[in-house]
Amino acid sequence: MIKVAVVGATGYGGAELVRLLSGHPEVALTALTSRTYAGQRLGDVYPNLAPFDYTLEALDVEAVGRADVVFFGLPHGEAMAHVPAVLERGARVIDLSGDFRLKEAALYPRWYGFEHTAPGLLAEAAYGLVETHRAELASARLVANPGCYPTGALLATLPLLRAGLSDPAEIIVDSKSGVSGAGRTSLKLAYHYPEANEDVSAYAVGTHRHTPEMEQEMAAAAGSPVRVLFTAHLVPATRGIFTTAYLSLRPDATRDAIEAAYLEAYGDEPFGVVCGGGAWPHTKATYGSNFAHVAVRVDERAQRAVCLSALDNLGKGMASQAVQCMNLMFGLPEATAVGAPAAYP
Amino acid sequence: MIKVAVVGATGYGGAELVRLLSGHPEVALTALTSRTYAGQRLGDVYPNLAPFDYTLEALDVEAVGRADVVFFGLPHGEAMAHVPAVLERGARVIDLSGDFRLKEAALYPRWYGFEHTAPGLLAEAAYGLVETHRAELASARLVANPGCYPTGALLATLPLLRAGLSDPAEIIVDSKSGVSGAGRTSLKLAYHYPEANEDVSAYAVGTHRHTPEMEQEMAAAAGSPVRVLFTAHLVPATRGIFTTAYLSLRPDATRDAIEAAYLEAYGDEPFGVVCGGGAWPHTKATYGSNFAHVAVRVDERAQRAVCLSALDNLGKGMASQAVQCMNLMFGLPEATAVGAPAAYP
Amino acid sequence: MIKVAVVGATGYGGAELVRLLSGHPEVALTALTSRTYAGQRLGDVYPNLAPFDYTLEALDVEAVGRADVVFFGLPHGEAMAHVPAVLERGARVIDLSGDFRLKEAALYPRWYGFEHTAPGLLAEAAYGLVETHRAELASARLVANPGCYPTGALLATLPLLRAGLSDPAEIIVDSKSGVSGAGRTSLKLAYHYPEANEDVSAYAVGTHRHTPEMEQEMAAAAGSPVRVLFTAHLVPATRGIFTTAYLSLRPDATRDAIEAAYLEAYGDEPFGVVCGGGAWPHTKATYGSNFAHVAVRVDERAQRAVCLSALDNLGKGMASQAVQCMNLMFGLPEATAVGAPAAYP
Amino acid sequence: MIKVAVVGATGYGGAELVRLLSGHPEVALTALTSRTYAGQRLGDVYPNLAPFDYTLEALDVEAVGRADVVFFGLPHGEAMAHVPAVLERGARVIDLSGDFRLKEAALYPRWYGFEHTAPGLLAEAAYGLVETHRAELASARLVANPGCYPTGALLATLPLLRAGLSDPAEIIVDSKSGVSGAGRTSLKLAYHYPEANEDVSAYAVGTHRHTPEMEQEMAAAAGSPVRVLFTAHLVPATRGIFTTAYLSLRPDATRDAIEAAYLEAYGDEPFGVVCGGGAWPHTKATYGSNFAHVAVRVDERAQRAVCLSALDNLGKGMASQAVQCMNLMFGLPEATAVGAPAAYP
Repeated sequence: MIKVAVVGATGYGGAELVRLLSGHPEVALTALTSRTYAGQRLGDVYPNLAPFDYTLEALDVEAVGRADVVFFGLPHGEAMAHVPAVLERGARVIDLSGDFRLKEAALYPRWYGFEHTAPGLLAEAAYGLVETHRAELASARLVANPGCYPTGALLATLPLLRAGLSDPAEIIVDSKSGVSGAGRTSLKLAYHYPEANEDVSAYAVGTHRHTPEMEQEMAAAAGSPVRVLFTAHLVPATRGIFTTAYLSLRPDATRDAIEAAYLEAYGDEPFGVVCGGGAWPHTKATYGSNFAHVAVRVDERAQRAVCLSALDNLGKGMASQAVQCMNLMFGLPEATAVGAPAAYP
Repeated sequence: MIKVAVVGATGYGGAELVRLLSGHPEVALTALTSRTYAGQRLGDVYPNLAPFDYTLEALDVEAVGRADVVFFGLPHGEAMAHVPAVLERGARVIDLSGDFRLKEAALYPRWYGFEHTAPGLLAEAAYGLVETHRAELASARLVANPGCYPTGALLATLPLLRAGLSDPAEIIVDSKSGVSGAGRTSLKLAYHYPEANEDVSAYAVGTHRHTPEMEQEMAAAAGSPVRVLFTAHLVPATRGIFTTAYLSLRPDATRDAIEAAYLEAYGDEPFGVVCGGGAWPHTKATYGSNFAHVAVRVDERAQRAVCLSALDNLGKGMASQAVQCMNLMFGLPEATAVGAPAAYP
Repeated sequence: MIKVAVVGATGYGGAELVRLLSGHPEVALTALTSRTYAGQRLGDVYPNLAPFDYTLEALDVEAVGRADVVFFGLPHGEAMAHVPAVLERGARVIDLSGDFRLKEAALYPRWYGFEHTAPGLLAEAAYGLVETHRAELASARLVANPGCYPTGALLATLPLLRAGLSDPAEIIVDSKSGVSGAGRTSLKLAYHYPEANEDVSAYAVGTHRHTPEMEQEMAAAAGSPVRVLFTAHLVPATRGIFTTAYLSLRPDATRDAIEAAYLEAYGDEPFGVVCGGGAWPHTKATYGSNFAHVAVRVDERAQRAVCLSALDNLGKGMASQAVQCMNLMFGLPEATAVGAPAAYP
Repeated sequence: MIKVAVVGATGYGGAELVRLLSGHPEVALTALTSRTYAGQRLGDVYPNLAPFDYTLEALDVEAVGRADVVFFGLPHGEAMAHVPAVLERGARVIDLSGDFRLKEAALYPRWYGFEHTAPGLLAEAAYGLVETHRAELASARLVANPGCYPTGALLATLPLLRAGLSDPAEIIVDSKSGVSGAGRTSLKLAYHYPEANEDVSAYAVGTHRHTPEMEQEMAAAAGSPVRVLFTAHLVPATRGIFTTAYLSLRPDATRDAIEAAYLEAYGDEPFGVVCGGGAWPHTKATYGSNFAHVAVRVDERAQRAVCLSALDNLGKGMASQAVQCMNLMFGLPEATAVGAPAAYP
């Protein structure tokens, strides 16, 4: 059995990890930490987990360091304070925050508003998008689990970028997210049910901290620099991110070649579904699951590809993707405990 | 491996069965039937199942009869035409419709509007509420899976009725259901998104066909006749039934005895959660799962108990409850493939 | 022009008052107060009012007392501290809180948790349900605007009670409310969008402070004491209350007499709609409006009437009802500024 | 009084017209037609209109032609068959369909799939976007009411285009619409509540018939050809369209100049609200109203403007905009009967 600790088990991401890991046949949960609820039963904080007997404790680096792998579900800027000590104790780490996603430490002050305190680990951290970093992840000691928006944007665009069929100089990413992406702990008026229900709005146009993460991974796929203009939107749903990305096509890019690039990219992927023919990605088709539905449409008038993806921001966009990484790191079938299809409808 | 057929696999109940059974380690799906979509991939009809390779076929009693167990997910009044032939071929049957729920054939014309064509099977059919019919179900050849509303009403009230703490002469059941209870095939204006969203309404006051089913099972628990006044409501949610039942208390019923009856009833049940203290049942805590959350509140002014339950109408109220039955019938742990906690939030 | 002040203009009730009064041809808004947002534009706090030029100020009894009528939209227990002084200055008062709804001061400690500090005004306060207190309201100096739940329960049941067709000894009221009933200022986890969406739950079984208000008004209609068992539910909608009330029928009550009682009660009412035939009350049909849709169904097996109503908790259940009162108090047509049909869908 | 007929009064647009016109002090509704419901009360078809006494009749060109103005709320391709005859009878016409929006008849076969049968009227038809065609509309005999998506896209981008601050060669328009945009009569699975709730998807990428309408009006504003790449999305809301448009900026366009263009464009407009500072457009702020909230954000890294708008697709995007036109055509204050702020929350 793999000994697993979850630091920050009472955020939406942490609790989703526990939900998934509770059914993992090779995992023993050895520690679940919470600053606010230490000493309480997790089932009293998350009613879906009421039937399960998990107790929350305060974070003790010594204790969590005895696990084989530690998931961090803390707010941005907090994991980096604890991760070095945990790694030293021999545990492997999967961090759900943005703390280890960017390779360039200098980007943190600008996009995250803090100086990185463990910049030496950035080069080592493997970016946890299994579809593109599988080999590296298998042996990784430290994994930076992708952001929810980048997961959607990357799965939608990377096949096109890798195939060299588009001009990567400027990519417009327009994403629509359910409200659970805002987390559970910050009770802002914007997420108060009467305000968020039946509302659509945009935020963080061009300033969202997920932007450099997209650019980094897209550039790696394209082999040349990428500039992303990213707009995030809130839609009245609990879960789900739908991404619409606009890329310029190279003059010689044919519809056939473009569609083939997607079929090839996801043909062997256990969690990538390409929607062709009359089918479209729908966030509902991914609810609670690790699947991502992807499509590409070509607009010949504009000589543009419109790249679409749908996923669950707490699933493939966060917790189940992290479990998929863990499976890979420990030599298990990737789909262990995360292979269930979405609940539908 | 248990060979399993699902007749009517493209209704919400049938598709939920496939979703659950796709992860069942002891099940081989040998036939999935659909009148409308025969010949198509199930994954083209249900996008959450797109990653799975299931093909739909027309109903062939011979073929499905070769399974060890056949789930029927047909509209009321249709299963009774096929079940006798399937049983003759040696398969066991779990029927999700109301066709075998009532012991008295004479009730069908009044409540369902049809004459029963296989009344000889009614006595044999085991009522699939595991919490009260476990022994009988283990050896049953034919199971009548409970209705979604009755499941909620029975789980809420049976502990009180069995303990003899209430007067069963009249029970008021006020239930609130998500719209998926209306099924997928009937596209009525009432379920058109713009009409159903942000709307609450009642229907079928005192005339709902689930009424005699509640009365039958409540009377069995109470040991005396029960008259139920049942009101169904539609609320703007996809899944979930919340039930509020009002029962008169016997003069000597104490709060302690009442609460004890619930703790005792569900103490060893794998899927019953009693909400005490400050906790309340929430449908969200059961989304996509086989769990039911139950609570009892005592109003001393009115000398009444208010019995509450929350469950997923497609889960414990339909498909996962049917799988729980199947596990029991085949000697497997009850929670196999249906033990996952609800996705939350 | 009627000079109108709104004290507490930034709660949902206060802002809805301003929305309605902004279109009232006989009203001049002379003061809008807010503790939290004094000095700001109301349109910066409520984006729907952005096009309107209203400025918020701190509460100054002297200033608001110069109005002809002052609406109070403060939390329970706060209006009673200011109302006497405002009345002394000659203004009339319509209070949206519960502070003046109960005739018996002794009920406040038990149900509201405070001692009433202006008990001398309770006898004088007119209960603002126009349908039953029209004459009294026309000349009232102080109006206690009904609670949202009581408005629904009373409109559903009073015709039956007044007609003497039911046994008033025990009435069960089961109400389903949208989340805006919780107000805007208390950002609790229960109202966080991801938690409240796709959830149904009950709260305050038998302990809700709207209970004695229902009992008081029902008893007045029935001419004998009434005991109400009230259960409140939260459903995933922004606006709307749906009420289902269960009453025992007298042995001689006929369906015809019952239905006639409703048609008579609402035949001349501008805002009461009786749903007969195949029609049912729907909260959506009342969204943003002052209309209430009402129906009665008779269950002969149970010898019970099931009384139904649907309304907008911020409309007929709060702000537009208060404007209807004001119109009556100032001799205007009742529907002035509140006669618009609901937005649909 | 202006005599008004509504042809197609039982679609969402037609019923919204009736809702608004029922409160118009200068309007007498002389005919409401419906193919499906002729002979019935409109209040039996639309429960929000139950309190109003309107009867539906079959379309009789003679009869509706006696009105001063006829609103057409028929599906695309049907109004053009009746409009010439109605105009001949001396009535003015406001058509809510796309039949008269495009100046070039040759575009209809490609985008709408039909040959235009009254091409001679296209030149005469005034495009009903009051903000840009006010003078022309005042005297128009035939008005083509804008599409819901174009209204959002045009209000978001025209100030920038008119000011010459952007390069109009390619504009990307990414819109998110509530489900009521699909209408009431087509009960498709995609709009079945359980399927549409908690789902986000895209449709009609690059092929939506609103595309040439956007291009026509944007080109007129820019003074040079415009190519629009338009993607429509469905989000789980009843009403509301949120538009995010991406435009390239000219090298000399400053943030100050851009923001000034919006303030100038909407400074005197009764229904345009510019969101600056920390404010963002929200569809909720426009629910049921004729207001549009607009914002522009500049991304200097990408040298792009992101132009945002929020409106009610059945309000400013359809029915209330048509009433605003009518007011203008008859010399009334534009806000008559459509000046109410949105219901909020």
